[in-house]
Amino acid sequence: VKRFAPRVTITDVAHAADVSKTTVSHVLSGKRPVAQPTRGRVEEAIRALGYRPDGLARSLRTRRTHMVALMIPDITNPFYPLLARGLEDGLDGDYRAFICNTDGARQREQEFLEEILDRRADGIVLDSFTMHPSGIASLVPEGIPVMRIGTTVIDEPAHDTVHADDELGALAATRHLLERGHRRIGLVRGPAGAGEKRTAGYLRALDEVGARPDPALVLSGEWTRSGGAAAARRLLALGEPPTAMFCANDVMALGVMDAARELDRTIPRDLALVGFDDIEAAALVSPPLTTVSNPPYETGLLAGVLLRERMTGAYRGAPRTVTLPCRLVERDTT
Amino acid sequence: VKRFAPRVTITDVAHAADVSKTTVSHVLSGKRPVAQPTRGRVEEAIRALGYRPDGLARSLRTRRTHMVALMIPDITNPFYPLLARGLEDGLDGDYRAFICNTDGARQREQEFLEEILDRRADGIVLDSFTMHPSGIASLVPEGIPVMRIGTTVIDEPAHDTVHADDELGALAATRHLLERGHRRIGLVRGPAGAGEKRTAGYLRALDEVGARPDPALVLSGEWTRSGGAAAARRLLALGEPPTAMFCANDVMALGVMDAARELDRTIPRDLALVGFDDIEAAALVSPPLTTVSNPPYETGLLAGVLLRERMTGAYRGAPRTVTLPCRLVERDTT
Repeated sequence: VKRFAPRVTITDVAHAADVSKTTVSHVLSGKRPVAQPTRGRVEEAIRALGYRPDGLARSLRTRRTHMVALMIPDITNPFYPLLARGLEDGLDGDYRAFICNTDGARQREQEFLEEILDRRADGIVLDSFTMHPSGIASLVPEGIPVMRIGTTVIDEPAHDTVHADDELGALAATRHLLERGHRRIGLVRGPAGAGEKRTAGYLRALDEVGARPDPALVLSGEWTRSGGAAAARRLLALGEPPTAMFCANDVMALGVMDAARELDRTIPRDLALVGFDDIEAAALVSPPLTTVSNPPYETGLLAGVLLRERMTGAYRGAPRTVTLPCRLVERDTT
Repeated sequence: VKRFAPRVTITDVAHAADVSKTTVSHVLSGKRPVAQPTRGRVEEAIRALGYRPDGLARSLRTRRTHMVALMIPDITNPFYPLLARGLEDGLDGDYRAFICNTDGARQREQEFLEEILDRRADGIVLDSFTMHPSGIASLVPEGIPVMRIGTTVIDEPAHDTVHADDELGALAATRHLLERGHRRIGLVRGPAGAGEKRTAGYLRALDEVGARPDPALVLSGEWTRSGGAAAARRLLALGEPPTAMFCANDVMALGVMDAARELDRTIPRDLALVGFDDIEAAALVSPPLTTVSNPPYETGLLAGVLLRERMTGAYRGAPRTVTLPCRLVERDTT
């Protein structure tokens, strides 16, 4: 078994090949021509000694770490592992991503951004409902590109952005329920201030058929299963409960299913249900959940491609926004 | 909005505080005492200029990057996001983990190990069914601790290891099926050479009741849903098909459920089924899957704690092995 030799330096290689350190550098970088047989001698010495270039020293010299920070709420939310995988593929092997789980907490987001700068990441992929572009600008130097994922809080993005068409997706979901004859449609949305586009799509669908939205049917909850269950219990306890619900994510819709089971309501007979995201569990639950696709892998892939163009300098223009289509996935809860 | 100023150097701070660069270094490192009011002047200059220490230069000096490589088959397998989250918590905020998805391919594992060394990760968390300790030793210098996760190919570990008690878990699963009266119990295992301990637990349970294992009932398949479905189709096509199956992971058990539906077999009436891992989907499918818990979060957490002790030098002793208990989770497929 050949042992790795960590202490071999460029000086050792130069000595063994009987050339200067500068010559070894030129062979390694390929930036200056080195004539054969000198090049051959250096390459042979590198092989024989098991020399490895020092990535850290190179990073310091080039100011490039080939590291990307992926700042997301929580890698255990099933949307994000697929996104992380897509990002890796989009970055094309040249960069690695390290994960910062923010739990959506502003304090943690800020701390992470500072840490990321200290580590000199070459780029940042950021999924934050709350962080305003000016807040990012105050923390991130201009040389470090930021790639935003998901719907931003403002319409005019200051950074490259990849997001799903949340409004059209929510419009399709609500239209589908209206077409099935439902008129009292509950909306289980995320925490106040988040996921506004999905709410907008819901309202737009009601408006299309001239239905007046009932504020009693619109509830905010955490993006979690228990958050969805709590909202459903309140909606089902109304004097005139909704006959259908649209949930702003699938995880909350799973919670609605829990609450319906608890209260002995059969889905879809007593309550129709549409989610959002099309996570793997949506197809596995019983009955399988009608939902809206929100492609995490493609989002990550595009984010990787666009960010790579920024980091390498291949693109230096105005911020770009890519909007991915969301389509209705009909299953058995409607 | 305060703009981040990336170009402030230690020289600027020294100039503003009217001291030498060495004095600024001493204030920053805290290693040598600096008298007040000099210390106060330096601290004031650091604040006023918005100076940030250069993490990269520090890494080169200390030979510490505070980065850990997490080498796993695939972050989109629902076991691993929880493990990654546990690892982050176990590393206690001091280290970040970057993910290397190997897809279980030996070639990618080797390439990643080389890249990891080039990046000078402070530690490696490795989940590999195939990599032999001597293979790791030939690639990783002794100064970089390797933490193994999951059952290793040999019993005498050369590295710290955290794994679930695969054999006892499989024993409990198979015993449970035997207690329900099944005697023809199929085993859907992973690819040849992987997951041997789970096979051992299955065989031990049969041996306990004096049952002779039937080689026709033991099939290898990919660790995927389609791999499980393919194995189940073959088992159900046998002249005397099994009345129960134990799958070496839940994802394959979901595939068995797909195949059973296709072939019009009702679970558990026509076919009893036990999985392994207790992923979230196990509780969501219909009927909910009986399985064996394999705690990913705790595995990651312990791996983080043990690896941190190695990286900081708090522990320098012989390799440690932590075995986490696996317990049967009875649901409705048995």
